[in-house]
Amino acid sequence: MKDFFVEDAARFENGTVTTYFVLSSLQVRDKKQGGQYLALTLSDKTGSFEGRMWDDVGEALASCSEGCYVKVQGDVSKYQGKFQITLRKLRLAADSEIDPKDFQASTKFDVEEMWTELRGYVAAFKNQDLQRLVFSFLDDDQIGPAFKAAPAAKRLHHAWLGGLLEHVLTLVRVCLAAVPFYPEVDPDLLVTGAILHDIGKVRELEWKSSFSYSLEGQMIGHISIAQGMLREKVQALAPFPEKLRVLVEHMILSHHGKYEFGSPKLPMTPEAILLSALDDLEAKMQAVRNEFAAAEVAGRDPDEVTEWVRSMDRSLFNSKKYLKGE
Amino acid sequence: MKDFFVEDAARFENGTVTTYFVLSSLQVRDKKQGGQYLALTLSDKTGSFEGRMWDDVGEALASCSEGCYVKVQGDVSKYQGKFQITLRKLRLAADSEIDPKDFQASTKFDVEEMWTELRGYVAAFKNQDLQRLVFSFLDDDQIGPAFKAAPAAKRLHHAWLGGLLEHVLTLVRVCLAAVPFYPEVDPDLLVTGAILHDIGKVRELEWKSSFSYSLEGQMIGHISIAQGMLREKVQALAPFPEKLRVLVEHMILSHHGKYEFGSPKLPMTPEAILLSALDDLEAKMQAVRNEFAAAEVAGRDPDEVTEWVRSMDRSLFNSKKYLKGE
Amino acid sequence: MKDFFVEDAARFENGTVTTYFVLSSLQVRDKKQGGQYLALTLSDKTGSFEGRMWDDVGEALASCSEGCYVKVQGDVSKYQGKFQITLRKLRLAADSEIDPKDFQASTKFDVEEMWTELRGYVAAFKNQDLQRLVFSFLDDDQIGPAFKAAPAAKRLHHAWLGGLLEHVLTLVRVCLAAVPFYPEVDPDLLVTGAILHDIGKVRELEWKSSFSYSLEGQMIGHISIAQGMLREKVQALAPFPEKLRVLVEHMILSHHGKYEFGSPKLPMTPEAILLSALDDLEAKMQAVRNEFAAAEVAGRDPDEVTEWVRSMDRSLFNSKKYLKGE
Amino acid sequence: MKDFFVEDAARFENGTVTTYFVLSSLQVRDKKQGGQYLALTLSDKTGSFEGRMWDDVGEALASCSEGCYVKVQGDVSKYQGKFQITLRKLRLAADSEIDPKDFQASTKFDVEEMWTELRGYVAAFKNQDLQRLVFSFLDDDQIGPAFKAAPAAKRLHHAWLGGLLEHVLTLVRVCLAAVPFYPEVDPDLLVTGAILHDIGKVRELEWKSSFSYSLEGQMIGHISIAQGMLREKVQALAPFPEKLRVLVEHMILSHHGKYEFGSPKLPMTPEAILLSALDDLEAKMQAVRNEFAAAEVAGRDPDEVTEWVRSMDRSLFNSKKYLKGE
Amino acid sequence: MKDFFVEDAARFENGTVTTYFVLSSLQVRDKKQGGQYLALTLSDKTGSFEGRMWDDVGEALASCSEGCYVKVQGDVSKYQGKFQITLRKLRLAADSEIDPKDFQASTKFDVEEMWTELRGYVAAFKNQDLQRLVFSFLDDDQIGPAFKAAPAAKRLHHAWLGGLLEHVLTLVRVCLAAVPFYPEVDPDLLVTGAILHDIGKVRELEWKSSFSYSLEGQMIGHISIAQGMLREKVQALAPFPEKLRVLVEHMILSHHGKYEFGSPKLPMTPEAILLSALDDLEAKMQAVRNEFAAAEVAGRDPDEVTEWVRSMDRSLFNSKKYLKGE
Amino acid sequence: MKDFFVEDAARFENGTVTTYFVLSSLQVRDKKQGGQYLALTLSDKTGSFEGRMWDDVGEALASCSEGCYVKVQGDVSKYQGKFQITLRKLRLAADSEIDPKDFQASTKFDVEEMWTELRGYVAAFKNQDLQRLVFSFLDDDQIGPAFKAAPAAKRLHHAWLGGLLEHVLTLVRVCLAAVPFYPEVDPDLLVTGAILHDIGKVRELEWKSSFSYSLEGQMIGHISIAQGMLREKVQALAPFPEKLRVLVEHMILSHHGKYEFGSPKLPMTPEAILLSALDDLEAKMQAVRNEFAAAEVAGRDPDEVTEWVRSMDRSLFNSKKYLKGE
Repeated sequence: MKDFFVEDAARFENGTVTTYFVLSSLQVRDKKQGGQYLALTLSDKTGSFEGRMWDDVGEALASCSEGCYVKVQGDVSKYQGKFQITLRKLRLAADSEIDPKDFQASTKFDVEEMWTELRGYVAAFKNQDLQRLVFSFLDDDQIGPAFKAAPAAKRLHHAWLGGLLEHVLTLVRVCLAAVPFYPEVDPDLLVTGAILHDIGKVRELEWKSSFSYSLEGQMIGHISIAQGMLREKVQALAPFPEKLRVLVEHMILSHHGKYEFGSPKLPMTPEAILLSALDDLEAKMQAVRNEFAAAEVAGRDPDEVTEWVRSMDRSLFNSKKYLKGE
Repeated sequence: MKDFFVEDAARFENGTVTTYFVLSSLQVRDKKQGGQYLALTLSDKTGSFEGRMWDDVGEALASCSEGCYVKVQGDVSKYQGKFQITLRKLRLAADSEIDPKDFQASTKFDVEEMWTELRGYVAAFKNQDLQRLVFSFLDDDQIGPAFKAAPAAKRLHHAWLGGLLEHVLTLVRVCLAAVPFYPEVDPDLLVTGAILHDIGKVRELEWKSSFSYSLEGQMIGHISIAQGMLREKVQALAPFPEKLRVLVEHMILSHHGKYEFGSPKLPMTPEAILLSALDDLEAKMQAVRNEFAAAEVAGRDPDEVTEWVRSMDRSLFNSKKYLKGE
Repeated sequence: MKDFFVEDAARFENGTVTTYFVLSSLQVRDKKQGGQYLALTLSDKTGSFEGRMWDDVGEALASCSEGCYVKVQGDVSKYQGKFQITLRKLRLAADSEIDPKDFQASTKFDVEEMWTELRGYVAAFKNQDLQRLVFSFLDDDQIGPAFKAAPAAKRLHHAWLGGLLEHVLTLVRVCLAAVPFYPEVDPDLLVTGAILHDIGKVRELEWKSSFSYSLEGQMIGHISIAQGMLREKVQALAPFPEKLRVLVEHMILSHHGKYEFGSPKLPMTPEAILLSALDDLEAKMQAVRNEFAAAEVAGRDPDEVTEWVRSMDRSLFNSKKYLKGE
Repeated sequence: MKDFFVEDAARFENGTVTTYFVLSSLQVRDKKQGGQYLALTLSDKTGSFEGRMWDDVGEALASCSEGCYVKVQGDVSKYQGKFQITLRKLRLAADSEIDPKDFQASTKFDVEEMWTELRGYVAAFKNQDLQRLVFSFLDDDQIGPAFKAAPAAKRLHHAWLGGLLEHVLTLVRVCLAAVPFYPEVDPDLLVTGAILHDIGKVRELEWKSSFSYSLEGQMIGHISIAQGMLREKVQALAPFPEKLRVLVEHMILSHHGKYEFGSPKLPMTPEAILLSALDDLEAKMQAVRNEFAAAEVAGRDPDEVTEWVRSMDRSLFNSKKYLKGE
Repeated sequence: MKDFFVEDAARFENGTVTTYFVLSSLQVRDKKQGGQYLALTLSDKTGSFEGRMWDDVGEALASCSEGCYVKVQGDVSKYQGKFQITLRKLRLAADSEIDPKDFQASTKFDVEEMWTELRGYVAAFKNQDLQRLVFSFLDDDQIGPAFKAAPAAKRLHHAWLGGLLEHVLTLVRVCLAAVPFYPEVDPDLLVTGAILHDIGKVRELEWKSSFSYSLEGQMIGHISIAQGMLREKVQALAPFPEKLRVLVEHMILSHHGKYEFGSPKLPMTPEAILLSALDDLEAKMQAVRNEFAAAEVAGRDPDEVTEWVRSMDRSLFNSKKYLKGE
Repeated sequence: MKDFFVEDAARFENGTVTTYFVLSSLQVRDKKQGGQYLALTLSDKTGSFEGRMWDDVGEALASCSEGCYVKVQGDVSKYQGKFQITLRKLRLAADSEIDPKDFQASTKFDVEEMWTELRGYVAAFKNQDLQRLVFSFLDDDQIGPAFKAAPAAKRLHHAWLGGLLEHVLTLVRVCLAAVPFYPEVDPDLLVTGAILHDIGKVRELEWKSSFSYSLEGQMIGHISIAQGMLREKVQALAPFPEKLRVLVEHMILSHHGKYEFGSPKLPMTPEAILLSALDDLEAKMQAVRNEFAAAEVAGRDPDEVTEWVRSMDRSLFNSKKYLKGE
């Protein structure tokens, strides 16, 4: 059991701790005239800090690599205002010693509350076929729990446990807020798309110790995985209206909105167009949040733009903070 | 005064009418062995129909050209299920004979009601500087009336009198619906952007007899025209907070969302990102509406996609109609 | 039954014929001073010719439209070296009067011979799982016959009955010829991909009277349709090795080779890379054939390039003919 | 006052100096077993050299950061043919101790001579409205001095004090040389565009201690800033001919020549086309100069191409040097 | 010999003429109930007009096609303000009857004067190797006369006899005007590039009766043709400095400035960069001239933009005319 | 003579060796408080290993640089499972001491056997003109030996001595295997293209000590170099059929298949289309081989994809290994 977290370092200054971390980075560096030492980054869900290990590094190197859970013993100290740890011992941790929740970031919201709210929207559907369809996913022994646990991405937006559910729920809410202004849109169909569009991520991503892509995720992708899952559910629910199957499948396939983002079809229905636009907006606003948080940590002034955001080809700017700084 | 409209043709079948139209198209065609006749399209706000003029076309040709208002006398008949008109007389109409409202499509909504609703949103601003700014546009002797009258485009979305106001009002409503989900967004700033983003169109477009671009519209464009208008208003309101000026100007410049759509800057603030995304969605959904209406007129079946939509690089599909057709 | 074909026109010059055609194009044109006549193109599998209908066109117009089968009576004549037909009667043909084979181009090869050759390649597989999989498609009551009948496209390459089988068989042969030079490639896996890559076209295309896209074809596309069909077959064959399923699915998804051509994944395995490259080559060489044939018909000289080929952004040049013309 | 410059290092070898620098780069590195040292780059207008500070780095780190002016005391030595400095003391310098001219590269030309030449061209205008307009910028209390001082860019071409004036003057000269060959061009209009096209840079860039972008530069950009400045001047000069305002504004907006370079309009007039082409050529030739100088410093042979130039997607080649090396 | 030109039509109104034209377009149209007539466009170097031929069209159709020289006899008349011709006879003209100069547009400048000026620039070269090289082209029995005669393009800029020489000479002049501002540039090398860059057009284009591309032009292109010609000349001049050969060859290969315009290399030397930029500017300004002339003919107002110019993706605007119209 | 190779390290563990290497990389690093040491990579054709030189580095640094042949004396040891060398002496090696074959990777196939096979294909040509042409290249005193020795690239595919011949031979074989399926293709013409398409690489690349681009390679490129070589050979063989010259030249110019890959023409003939497609496939499959080998070395699991391959914008996956791992 892990009883020391990075955020507790102040209480252990100049003391010795024995605990578990994810070994987030590991570099071997030359010591003068023979010998090597290790420069490491050690992380848990509350943060990370730098470590050095000066002696007996051979055995550690032989068993541990980046991404592993490790058990360490070391001395906590403060230098130039930051805490660091000098390791005496370092070894691979056994799975049985580890509770992954201690190491991975997870949603700040209550998963069960989010789940209940989401199911509530489905329970309110007028279209019983779509209701049957969505519940067949949510009630699935494998898909349901994975839906609650999965991150929404390896990096970038909602990359934490429960991130997929959090992303989907926000998207459903925004969709429902927009529906009154677009009478061309069938609300049940739209919400079905919002709930299922990223369902392939429960097989595309793996989140045991760290977040990564499954082989199927890399070879098939979450869009086509979701399409396959839909086919299976539709077959199990037979008879299921073919028209609805085509419309839902189209929303899943087209939700990235552009061929170059991996959608094999462009959105053609009002629901698909709305879903794709609001999903893209959600992702962009989450990126905004991440960048503003990073700028906060980096101590940027209210009139400074953020670091360059490669995925958006621009810097961002926190207008609210700027106005408050007035 | 115009007392016959295209939609009245059935009541005048095999009768003779004398009235005004816009001459939407005009072609001169060869009659066998010498001589020419005219094939025309005549339009008013209720529709258009085909006409032929077989004799005495010289004088008509000398004075009339496409886009003019004309006065005609002719015989209405029905052929292959469609009404047509065989002209006896055709001459240019004087401006004094014409009320442009009779000839141009205009919004189905009540302009004054829309105007009141829009002003209501501004009246509710907490930020008094932004309120002053927006009202300085709405209360302007020239801009206000033009804002109520202008179409939102020459073709494509909202290409009718009052279309600009209709587009802006819908956008403001959707923005306000989305705001609760994005705490990073300043609502007054966002609504200011939604109201002013297309204000340059009152100078970019001309809508006297038909819709066209002004020279300034073609050389400068509505984005930069709007920026110039903003500068003038800000100067007139001095002192006006520089921070707000920069943020509003940024929303105007970036609202097309991409360089290749004529925005010299990409959206960097939460408000600019949200505005640009919802403005694009609005335009797409209006295109959807237009295409569905055109498919209706063309008598397409519920399981047929629309004509190819070049501006969107795809056909569209009316999912609601398809489901009802079940 | 159709007993007159376009290619028989010479034998019927100045005579009257009664027969069936596809109404490939139909235009209504003005006669001088009132009235209209029809200009039509009438087609069968041997070609097409122009027709005119001068009188009693109202009834014909009311029932017939482009793409219909029609029954006509008319006089065949020759003008400026080309045969034409002047119609006396024109009416819609009933399905019972029509054998679609009379009207659509079809492959010049023997379908059963091609089918036998294709099955032979599968029978020779060493990998029995892949063999089971491919035969489950070929032996399917619905897929098998459709595979033999379907065109490979609506227009462009192999747009004729049996065209899909012809395209697939040639591709399999070229794949097998290339395999010896690429030891990284598993031959059975590659041939499986070559046979199944376009199988979704049996649902994407419709070829009853003319070639068109199904609604599912337009909303889902043949790549994702094929993926769904694969899922169904794999489920029916359970247990089927998951590894093979992923690799075959990857070939189907990636065979267009580029995102902008509708592939949601780029080819990552040796088999997928080879398949995608040779499929593209096949399509290009078939386009070459079509263009050379069209240039022949148009009477182009051996040192002239073909018409501009938009899909390839260039003209083509028949090098062999040019060299022979020496 | 700064009385030691980097270029003086030889005279102070093995001596101790006390002077000011810009702290161009700063890295904290580990010393073996505890402690850290600083690796720095110190610059002034004559160049830069490497420094190390081994002890008492805490206080220095707390107050100094990259881009600051610093006061240092240290020992100059030579190692492997290059001078370096080992610091004893390092502290932030007060603004009062600093003359920015000592630290930033500046134009090799005489600013006042350039200014006089530029004003001479304007004085020779035949069009008195354009003359009034341009002088209203040059004579402006804020714009005039900034125009003389500003760099033309943060990096890349003309990134030095006076660089904007130098760039503009060269462009004016080339424009005047090209005018005789293009009778469609109005010379006064063209030169007005050449002088004002980059005037927004006086607000886009900041050049106090180092070169950076202002917030307005990042959110609005120099093109739109310049357009705003033009509007203000035109208003102040009222009545000013609207036609000239539109044509000058068009040149400013379109001078980057492409949407993706941030121009909201493409050049449509002869003057705008010529200005945009020659401005682009100027920038490219200045990049050529910079790269050739860098290759000279790096000791490249006459038959070697330069480093890869990312902004131009190619290497460059000094043809004149290559021919001389014959 | 041709003694009637289109521009003489007024003097022959209601008379009969017998003369030669290029048959620029030819359409066969239906006469009511059997029979066909011809609608033609007949051109010479002074313009073109419309013709009709009502009878005996069979023989004419059998021998004449678009692009041929024809001999016609017909009646000139005026209708709706435009001259037209009603043909009685139409036959193919023999080559011996034709002087191509009567039919093709040609430069307004004196070819020999241009030629002398161009040779003068070469005679002034300091670099005797480059001088030898350029004269070996200009003095070539085949290349020299072709250089004087060739158009610079099939359509678009300088598409008239002598157009290549006119384009090259203007380019050389502008290059020489720009050289003083770019000391990195070797003037003789630059002028060599300006004279030879398009020399491949003498083989790419054919200009016997109308302007077209040769087969080599279509398969190889003028850039690579020019490179081949350079190689031949260099071999004939051996020994010729290899360094100069590489630099001249590089200018020829890179002068289109972008890969997508058919240049296999991007400009890397100062001369190649300058040449490519000024060549592009020349082409654009010539397009400007053509569009302004077309707008003049079409009677556009001074405040109207030109037709959309597809090759430039914009309309153009005649600023000088607009200012004069004040 | 070199009598110690990297692959022999195990036999010399803890011994001292004196031998030659290519100095593949060289970094100067700080020793604490004054002084520097060298970190080097030393390579020969069997591999490379790391070295350190702690003392007397001044003289070595003065004479040696990356890419040189060096003579070293040093102690071989093993650390953390890898061999390394601690240098005592390091000096530049003279050309006379070096046999380049010892240092560069070269083809695993027998060059003379490959050469004989290639000549055999040419000897079997039916077209004697093409045969004469190809042999004029292969029998050329300079081109022949260079063709046998040259790598096919500086990096990426076939970047080893003999790589060009190996690449060309494989391509010829695949072309001959594909020919039976494409009757439009002239086999001799195709094979001529396959043999000559990359012949310009013998002048584009230099492979004395390491692989690099010649100046002509950088300024002209192997496509245009090859075209020039073809011109010279054709002139020497005169009379040579112009038609064949154009067709071969077209294949050379177009073989990269896209403008952005440096082809000034797109493939227009069946031979050019086939050649370009199979050449691209060959390059991709060789990249596949390289990446699979690198993944092997890096110890990746059978279900892991390779590193990201930038030139292909994807990771690759070894399907055969994955299936075997079952």
